[in-house]
Amino acid sequence: MEEDAEKSLVSVLTGQVAKPPPIWLMRQAGRYLPEYREARAQAGSFWSMCTDPKVAVEVTLQPVRRFGFDAAIIFSDILTVPFALGCEVGFSDGSGPNLPPVNSICGLETRAEIWQPKLDPVYQALELVRTRLGSGTTLLGFAGAPWTLATYMAGGHGGDQQRAAKLWGYREPETFAALLELIGDCVAQHLIWQIEAGADVVQIFDSWAGGLPDQAYDSWVIGPTRSVVEKVRATHPQAKIIGFPRASTLAGYELYAARTGVDAISVDTAVPRIWMVKFTEATVVQGNLDPLLLVVGGSALERAVNCIVESMNDRRFIFNLGHGVLPETPPEHVTQLVAMVRAVR
Amino acid sequence: MEEDAEKSLVSVLTGQVAKPPPIWLMRQAGRYLPEYREARAQAGSFWSMCTDPKVAVEVTLQPVRRFGFDAAIIFSDILTVPFALGCEVGFSDGSGPNLPPVNSICGLETRAEIWQPKLDPVYQALELVRTRLGSGTTLLGFAGAPWTLATYMAGGHGGDQQRAAKLWGYREPETFAALLELIGDCVAQHLIWQIEAGADVVQIFDSWAGGLPDQAYDSWVIGPTRSVVEKVRATHPQAKIIGFPRASTLAGYELYAARTGVDAISVDTAVPRIWMVKFTEATVVQGNLDPLLLVVGGSALERAVNCIVESMNDRRFIFNLGHGVLPETPPEHVTQLVAMVRAVR
Repeated sequence: MEEDAEKSLVSVLTGQVAKPPPIWLMRQAGRYLPEYREARAQAGSFWSMCTDPKVAVEVTLQPVRRFGFDAAIIFSDILTVPFALGCEVGFSDGSGPNLPPVNSICGLETRAEIWQPKLDPVYQALELVRTRLGSGTTLLGFAGAPWTLATYMAGGHGGDQQRAAKLWGYREPETFAALLELIGDCVAQHLIWQIEAGADVVQIFDSWAGGLPDQAYDSWVIGPTRSVVEKVRATHPQAKIIGFPRASTLAGYELYAARTGVDAISVDTAVPRIWMVKFTEATVVQGNLDPLLLVVGGSALERAVNCIVESMNDRRFIFNLGHGVLPETPPEHVTQLVAMVRAVR
Repeated sequence: MEEDAEKSLVSVLTGQVAKPPPIWLMRQAGRYLPEYREARAQAGSFWSMCTDPKVAVEVTLQPVRRFGFDAAIIFSDILTVPFALGCEVGFSDGSGPNLPPVNSICGLETRAEIWQPKLDPVYQALELVRTRLGSGTTLLGFAGAPWTLATYMAGGHGGDQQRAAKLWGYREPETFAALLELIGDCVAQHLIWQIEAGADVVQIFDSWAGGLPDQAYDSWVIGPTRSVVEKVRATHPQAKIIGFPRASTLAGYELYAARTGVDAISVDTAVPRIWMVKFTEATVVQGNLDPLLLVVGGSALERAVNCIVESMNDRRFIFNLGHGVLPETPPEHVTQLVAMVRAVR
């Protein structure tokens, strides 16, 4: 109880304004850190890092040690869920993840007792991280959202404007809804197990929520996310959940905050500051520095950070990027960023 | 004079509501048409189609003949402007256009008398199309917006989240502004010459306007576009101009409509219908059917088209897609679409 009271990120999610705002960065454990590249070289592959709890613990803690972030996010990948569902997930350097495309839910694994051992390395890693983390540092678990996972499963890879998933959804709305529901069951279960393994907060990544017509956004993003949140809360009513429907329209973000039941929305780089302020009337907001500004550094970074923290002053706000840290980011720029945010009074 | 009065697209741009709304499609001349593929095979390359007026005229007219669209858009490419500025533009099938990346404006051509002969095939094609087009059919010219052209020129190709252009703009705002201004001079001149060659309306494509932080959107999208519009209007005060800042935020579209001086905004697929209606209070709106629905056809297409035309009933509206026609689109779905839109009373 006392421990929780010290976690600034958790306290913001329960409605407090924190000064300075808590800060962590999406992909804060990553290739921009020399210690990460070393762990990566030893592990041999990205996927083996995700599935070996010892390695996952080490890389999860690296950025917290180096920068003193307010949160650690467990090192894992959103494709753990398709993996639990029976997909053969592959990672090749440079071209992103790939898996054999799915065009029906037949053949996907529906039994939670089969999912559990495949996802277990994540829970082991969370338990280990929890024991090594300072009491003031929030531990985040995460999962991909049903829609975003469906785009990978239908397309066999990311990008490509989510064409295969959209075609499936337009052509066969019922079977596509069944796919989203099955994925959602596994996502919810995965979040529940992560909370039980020690995650204080969980984040749902809907990286491909952008570009959808409003009806599709409602059916494929809002509905399935609400269903995941409800399932998690049925087991853990106090669960703290952040949603990141990246590249949604401003109306989409507003709807997402109002309808899905998440405690906070993480917003992408294009969301104007005036809208971020508006969103804080209804929810907690996390975001949204352009990761390229962290590559650039200097006065451009300083100006952008000041704009964000001044706009969000006295608001329920978590400082983050609008997308993940880029591999070419100089670590010293991250040090500067943390110092700037911590200087907020 | 009488001729203009019959063009429903032009009349909508001058403030009239048309029933049924005028319809044309971005990339209506393209690979989904067998007659286009034939012309393409004969011409040998995409670029030679753009630079041979006779071929450009033929493929410009093909979709108008087949579907009876309300507008013909001249067959050309946005990279004609970088080409006029001295860049060596290459097109390889499948991977999109490429050009040697530029990191300074030194070496770019600033003299309009050098641009003119390089752009001349476009004007020749417009003059020929004008003589062959029915009096009720609007002839559209177009150009890429300065920001989008800068992303190709800085990056050497499209996509890649416009990283090179953003880095340049963040690191050296002054030299980047100079690049945008030079591109804008050539874009404005190209639009002016297209109008003089017979274009009734011109469209500015800012295909990569999405994902920019608000300050950058203002400096790189709004400002340079306003400057192009002002330059065109300085020569042709009555010029009719449509702007397409694709994937802008809703606030971005609103700002674009209010500040750039365009007569109409073309909106992407993700813009909710309620916002399209809102935008028509200030401007004419064009859009925004998902091109994938034109691939799918059937009842999904029918429902989506009905939703759009019902929402935009009694509004100043031009029916279009939210992005270009996809190569796998069955032409008969386009026939059905035109019939559905023409049935609006």
